[in-house]
Amino acid sequence: MEKYFYKDFNGAFNDASYASNYTAKRGASPIPRRHSKISTLDEVMDVIEDGDVISYPHYYRTGDKGLELVVQKLRQYGKKNICLYANAIFDHTEPWLQNAFRDGVLTSFYGNPYRKFGAFLMNGGLDQPSVGFSHGNRVRKLQTGEIKVKVAFGPVPMADIHGNASGCLGDSKHWCGPLGLFLADAEYADYVCLLTGDVSDRLLIPASISMELVDFVVPVDCPGLAEGIGSGTLNIEKARSNPFNAKIAENVTKVMHAAEVIQDGFNFQVGSGAGLVVLDNIRQELRSRKIQANYAIGGITSLHVDMYKEGLIDSLMHGQLFEASDKVVSSLYNDAKHVEISTGYYASVAGKEAAVNMLDVAVLSALELDLEFNVNTVCANGRIIGGIGGGQDVAAGADLTIMFLPLATGKNGKGFPKVVEKVYTKTTPGEVIDVVVTEDYVVVNPNSKSTKKNILIERAKEFGLNIIDIETLHDFSIKKAKEFGVLPILTEVTDRVIHYIEWRDGTLLDKIYQPFVK
Amino acid sequence: MEKYFYKDFNGAFNDASYASNYTAKRGASPIPRRHSKISTLDEVMDVIEDGDVISYPHYYRTGDKGLELVVQKLRQYGKKNICLYANAIFDHTEPWLQNAFRDGVLTSFYGNPYRKFGAFLMNGGLDQPSVGFSHGNRVRKLQTGEIKVKVAFGPVPMADIHGNASGCLGDSKHWCGPLGLFLADAEYADYVCLLTGDVSDRLLIPASISMELVDFVVPVDCPGLAEGIGSGTLNIEKARSNPFNAKIAENVTKVMHAAEVIQDGFNFQVGSGAGLVVLDNIRQELRSRKIQANYAIGGITSLHVDMYKEGLIDSLMHGQLFEASDKVVSSLYNDAKHVEISTGYYASVAGKEAAVNMLDVAVLSALELDLEFNVNTVCANGRIIGGIGGGQDVAAGADLTIMFLPLATGKNGKGFPKVVEKVYTKTTPGEVIDVVVTEDYVVVNPNSKSTKKNILIERAKEFGLNIIDIETLHDFSIKKAKEFGVLPILTEVTDRVIHYIEWRDGTLLDKIYQPFVK
Repeated sequence: MEKYFYKDFNGAFNDASYASNYTAKRGASPIPRRHSKISTLDEVMDVIEDGDVISYPHYYRTGDKGLELVVQKLRQYGKKNICLYANAIFDHTEPWLQNAFRDGVLTSFYGNPYRKFGAFLMNGGLDQPSVGFSHGNRVRKLQTGEIKVKVAFGPVPMADIHGNASGCLGDSKHWCGPLGLFLADAEYADYVCLLTGDVSDRLLIPASISMELVDFVVPVDCPGLAEGIGSGTLNIEKARSNPFNAKIAENVTKVMHAAEVIQDGFNFQVGSGAGLVVLDNIRQELRSRKIQANYAIGGITSLHVDMYKEGLIDSLMHGQLFEASDKVVSSLYNDAKHVEISTGYYASVAGKEAAVNMLDVAVLSALELDLEFNVNTVCANGRIIGGIGGGQDVAAGADLTIMFLPLATGKNGKGFPKVVEKVYTKTTPGEVIDVVVTEDYVVVNPNSKSTKKNILIERAKEFGLNIIDIETLHDFSIKKAKEFGVLPILTEVTDRVIHYIEWRDGTLLDKIYQPFVK
Repeated sequence: MEKYFYKDFNGAFNDASYASNYTAKRGASPIPRRHSKISTLDEVMDVIEDGDVISYPHYYRTGDKGLELVVQKLRQYGKKNICLYANAIFDHTEPWLQNAFRDGVLTSFYGNPYRKFGAFLMNGGLDQPSVGFSHGNRVRKLQTGEIKVKVAFGPVPMADIHGNASGCLGDSKHWCGPLGLFLADAEYADYVCLLTGDVSDRLLIPASISMELVDFVVPVDCPGLAEGIGSGTLNIEKARSNPFNAKIAENVTKVMHAAEVIQDGFNFQVGSGAGLVVLDNIRQELRSRKIQANYAIGGITSLHVDMYKEGLIDSLMHGQLFEASDKVVSSLYNDAKHVEISTGYYASVAGKEAAVNMLDVAVLSALELDLEFNVNTVCANGRIIGGIGGGQDVAAGADLTIMFLPLATGKNGKGFPKVVEKVYTKTTPGEVIDVVVTEDYVVVNPNSKSTKKNILIERAKEFGLNIIDIETLHDFSIKKAKEFGVLPILTEVTDRVIHYIEWRDGTLLDKIYQPFVK
């Protein structure tokens, strides 16, 4: 069943020169002239043949409504063997998505399967292995033509009849902000179909997706719900009140201070939760030193927008909405230096540069981490829990990549060490991780190539950092896990590959095997 | 010498279905990681081989300084047989550009040659015919790979070391505003080289050209001078004081009123000179009726910006600067609905839609026009005077295309009729011209497919329009020319083709032959 078609992983930065070529794509025919592109999904089915690839972006996250419409329409028309080039797949897709795979409407899958869909894959739901990729790699595959998409479907709150689309217009209940995750789909697919909540007869100006790329505009009742995207206005007090967040954020902030990364003109990415507390700490620091960050990228929140308006951050770059608030969306639409970026600009290694590469510091989280600093964000002992997201790209690009995680967790009399001998699944290679932060400890990767490594080590004590080595952290993690309860036994697996984990350049980083049926 | 490789022109809208495919292009190698792209032109020469195609945009117009640097560097490195994929070529390129062709550094040419360079071509300066194209067709050839550019050179006032560029930053003396004319070059060339006045170490956000596309950033003293782009703040009083402008504008405005094109939400493009007076008339009309135009496109001036700020125009779309003023450039950079567009979005027929197609009315000018309404903007009786520009695209796209020209002109005892039996060179087919306007007369094309044709004819008298037929206008034109003096004798030509005129889809519209040597 498994066809091993991969080049082996050859280091995070494969310096071998290779001929990267962007793929060709279908243009217009005949000459376009102001025709309305309003269509139905039925018409779109005409261009889809059995075995074709369709693509779909995940920016509505659990609020998405469009993918179900597409999959049910494929079923209605008796389509078979369709490959779904997706991204994150969440639990709201059940049962219709699994059923489509069971019934042969869909047969192959690219993307990051979460929880229920992950379990479906692990139970052998697909005849062939699926493929997990980073945001940048998803774009790279489209650019290089490794994947040729027949129809890219994109849900949007508003489009005009000619195919321009915006995520910041229309019914605010449907706002999804930047359409950056969909841009490469629209650029490289042969056909592009928008599923739109509202329709404008006039051109949308500005628009995020250009009518140059679009074939079909299909009005739908609901493309997706903004409320499924994020948790609304992220509450900094609530984040601070979580003891884990507070401790981690304090430790991460100390690392930043010791490493002198908070400088006038520095670039950064932080996540939500503890990341939000870190962001608030950065705000205080920028204020008190009267300096300005150059740009922040990824997971832009109200707090980012406040900092931008206050002049503490020069520019915000926005590829994917995490907070569907009026404050964030209005700022994106109106403010000259709060700009939408494509996922290719953010992270593709087929492009001649990517914004992740200019990050001075990035704060990321992980499921587990091992003695070689390899990171796992996907599969815990046979259960697929998380995805790759932009993690690989950001970790590889940032000068100082700070990876945080709890030392250990426990549940129902079981203890789970988070710093392990060998990660269950390698989703990011250790060579691109510079610092590991737990609640109480900090480990600097001796193989780190960060320009901040030496100063961080020199000034660690001065800033009250408890620096230890990875072996010691591993010991502490095991010890702590045992305090919670019994350590889990490693799930035994068959030799059937269920899911490939690619590195961002398309080489093979790891494989996930099907566990033995219990 | 001539190799006839063209499909014949098959109507302005060739409805035959054809397989338009975008070309492949070179991506990155190896994986990019925050390297500075600062280079010298000498380094760029390494990738150029004899016979390669280089491209260069013309947005600095007579102020351009970059092309000479490139051509002299090609000469210094002994490059031969290079094809120049240019656009408009003006007199400031002498003598170095002609010399480069004489010496075999350059051998083939795509673009719109004006005056001196036109004369050089007409004198047989090139061994093979050159090719003239519209703005949209120039992009289409890049998109479809009819032309494969090795290195695209782009002059910009400011770029960062990673290759993001903006025409609105840096030294205001070098501002060129939108880089839309260069975007397709940057997207489809194998290598992209910026020639930049200022260099930023920080990412330019927002930028008009993305670092994803750029290989080389070459700092230069002067990429081009804004003062060469346009005539500064265009003076409406000055335009009105020109008797021809005043009469033409009055007549054009009456046509618009009669045809009821000035409506809430209408889209328009007008040019400079008489076009500016028409724009001012539109302003009065929008004000008095308290309605708003949807978008204006092409040749955005201070007056457009004033109308945008006043709420008389919802959006401005900007592909090429004509007025390098702080008012226009600042508005482009800061205002949410004053947006930069690519020439592809504007006009390429390979894209799945183009903005010219949504124009309700466009006002264009011509050198001469004939009994079949064919237009000539390029070659008057053996002398190449003007270019195609966006004229073909706009005329084909707009619902109501108004072409204006003087009835006749005279000089040194000679008279030149402007409405002729057959244009010397057909640069736009008559089928896309709806109305012809001279100082005193209006002709409606009986073959016009404009939705405004009938109402215009019905209401012409009511609005004081002097409507005649094209044959009568031709007679008047001849008569008027004779009042100026002797009519010119048609230049006799050899059978050697000097220059092809393509229609926007790449079919052959006309050929310009070399005149007999006098």
